[in-house]
Amino acid sequence: MPHGSEQLLFELFVIFAAAKLAGEMFERISLPGVLGEILAGTVLGPYALAWVRPSDTISSVAEVGAIFVLFTAGLETSPGDLIRVGRKAILVAIAGVVLPFLLGFAYMKLRGDPSTEAIFVGAAMVATSVGITARVLSDLRVISSDTAKIILGAAVFDDILGMVLLALVAGLASGNGLEWLHLGVLLAEAAAFVLFMIFVAPRIFRRVHPKVEKLSTQDASLIVALAICLFLSWLSAKIGMAAIIGAFFAGLMFSDFAPRWNLPSRVRGITDFLAPYFFFSIGAQLNPRLFTGKVLLAAVVVSVLAIVSKVIGCGLPLLREGWLSVFRVGVGMMPRGEVALIVALVGLQSGIVTQSTYAIVVFMTALTTLTAPPILRILYRNETRGGENPTAAV
Amino acid sequence: MPHGSEQLLFELFVIFAAAKLAGEMFERISLPGVLGEILAGTVLGPYALAWVRPSDTISSVAEVGAIFVLFTAGLETSPGDLIRVGRKAILVAIAGVVLPFLLGFAYMKLRGDPSTEAIFVGAAMVATSVGITARVLSDLRVISSDTAKIILGAAVFDDILGMVLLALVAGLASGNGLEWLHLGVLLAEAAAFVLFMIFVAPRIFRRVHPKVEKLSTQDASLIVALAICLFLSWLSAKIGMAAIIGAFFAGLMFSDFAPRWNLPSRVRGITDFLAPYFFFSIGAQLNPRLFTGKVLLAAVVVSVLAIVSKVIGCGLPLLREGWLSVFRVGVGMMPRGEVALIVALVGLQSGIVTQSTYAIVVFMTALTTLTAPPILRILYRNETRGGENPTAAV
Repeated sequence: MPHGSEQLLFELFVIFAAAKLAGEMFERISLPGVLGEILAGTVLGPYALAWVRPSDTISSVAEVGAIFVLFTAGLETSPGDLIRVGRKAILVAIAGVVLPFLLGFAYMKLRGDPSTEAIFVGAAMVATSVGITARVLSDLRVISSDTAKIILGAAVFDDILGMVLLALVAGLASGNGLEWLHLGVLLAEAAAFVLFMIFVAPRIFRRVHPKVEKLSTQDASLIVALAICLFLSWLSAKIGMAAIIGAFFAGLMFSDFAPRWNLPSRVRGITDFLAPYFFFSIGAQLNPRLFTGKVLLAAVVVSVLAIVSKVIGCGLPLLREGWLSVFRVGVGMMPRGEVALIVALVGLQSGIVTQSTYAIVVFMTALTTLTAPPILRILYRNETRGGENPTAAV
Repeated sequence: MPHGSEQLLFELFVIFAAAKLAGEMFERISLPGVLGEILAGTVLGPYALAWVRPSDTISSVAEVGAIFVLFTAGLETSPGDLIRVGRKAILVAIAGVVLPFLLGFAYMKLRGDPSTEAIFVGAAMVATSVGITARVLSDLRVISSDTAKIILGAAVFDDILGMVLLALVAGLASGNGLEWLHLGVLLAEAAAFVLFMIFVAPRIFRRVHPKVEKLSTQDASLIVALAICLFLSWLSAKIGMAAIIGAFFAGLMFSDFAPRWNLPSRVRGITDFLAPYFFFSIGAQLNPRLFTGKVLLAAVVVSVLAIVSKVIGCGLPLLREGWLSVFRVGVGMMPRGEVALIVALVGLQSGIVTQSTYAIVVFMTALTTLTAPPILRILYRNETRGGENPTAAV
């Protein structure tokens, strides 16, 4: 009767139940459920009521939850579609990285902060947190629409650029200056990984799949998909990208076989179980008490800049597709998440960034994360009644 | 880029891949896959090659995996069936507890060990590890046969008796003597819980289920089932039983609605993902180097006694059903697991039990765990060709 397990089971139950209960309440008043799951984390988390302090194990579960959110998103995206939107997605990603960085940097300089601090804030404004958007798109059942594919594709590239920027600011923070060689290697590895996963991996898999179907293990197709998802998640963390990028590409690799192997419903079971821990944990990291007076003002300005720059930067390359597409993609790319928090934390721990600048970044993350889901829902409202690309319900 | 996560993902991948690969190899030579998963743990685990040292997080994942193995088993058992085999199951459980305890106690006394040490060994020989048997029965697709239901039912009662014995020996170990009040409370709580879950919970649930189907959350039926599974697992750990007992009864509660809600395939996805960590961890706890000379002899004798006493004790009440049922149930109840190891550990840590007695118990656990699955497979070989109760494939 190990008592550690009693504590763990209690946390698992309370977080799961609280997140889904809040989600249900939000759905009933026509707000995205994921918002409820995040706010449940903020309210019950260590910075507010402090009823639940997520342990290391819960953090690990949350991380695996994020992996399965992206794996599911990948399963619902076909490599062909991603290639088709590829050019647009890359433009969206680059514009959506450059503009937020410049605006964030400029505002902090205008406030009179030193350049290094301005670079950190700019870098924190760059990387989209695709987990939240993927979940909202999936809940709205529009994940196979064209704009959803551009968002997912752009978010992948933008995450890679974010990782490069993180390596850059980490170099600044270490005081060793920039290690250009390291940056070059990171960029080359990321590019090679992405190209391989889009163009080569699905073809290899199409050749070997009959062997998978002949395996003796029960549910062999699911087992193989899970093993490859875990492997690619680890690999992309290993070469310095986010684990979720690997998970997304693992899903992409299996997407053409997903219906035949009945993968979506079985993987969805895992995602349904683990994802609430991810969204709850995001919420639990937000400290609503950090904000007073001047910090709050700066936080609001940075948040507005983060929103405007991402919507304009990501939307502009799509002007020809009409305003709806501009805003769908722009807002879809809005939420910032883990990468922003990590950039800020690196800066704080190395003493380059002050407590109040850290609070500004956290506030920006919170606001972009919380505002994107309800706006997305409004923007996709007409989709099922015959929008750009009527989607099949999963 | 937190590097802890890279390490975690690596462990998750390696354990999953190694367990399933070994399982596939075993299936190909017509041995149960679960045996391969366990042996993968022993070979790669800390006591042999030491390539993988399961971290605390992996242990937690393993525990949740065990919960889902029993939740799945519960989903495949209907409360009505359990009530029908109830009398037989209780007889099997009691005979299967008394005989192993007496034989273990007697042998250790004959060897010249003190009474307290003999009581520990006897207690360790009592509790069946139902996780392994449930997995084998499920793999063989005979989990809805009559004997499978007797095994699952008896294993639940036997686990409760095991917990009572554990409380008893823990009292011995603490030197405070026996706390009869504590034992009585434990027994009363366990009985109340089991009776409530078999007779009352499914009825309550039949009344409220239309409300679940009206919830706004996506996949609400699965979400509610998962929340109740986590809650009952915690609750049964809280009142001093094993968490997996709660998980089994949670499954039982939903079993009548499982097909309508498409629960089995979605929960199976979760079980497929998490269960390998449980079986790998069981294997990783076995230290093959503990055994030399006299210890090995005693270990073999105790193991044989553990096997014979369980097969006879559990099988005898079923003599009227024919020899096949006797052996199926007897062998199905054979594997000892966590409870035996915990009893031994409590004894070791309190200094009552010696290192060599501890090794004897570990050996007995290993041997009963490893030998039951292949024998079960042989005993159920004719089932699908029209055995006692031809079963529907799940």
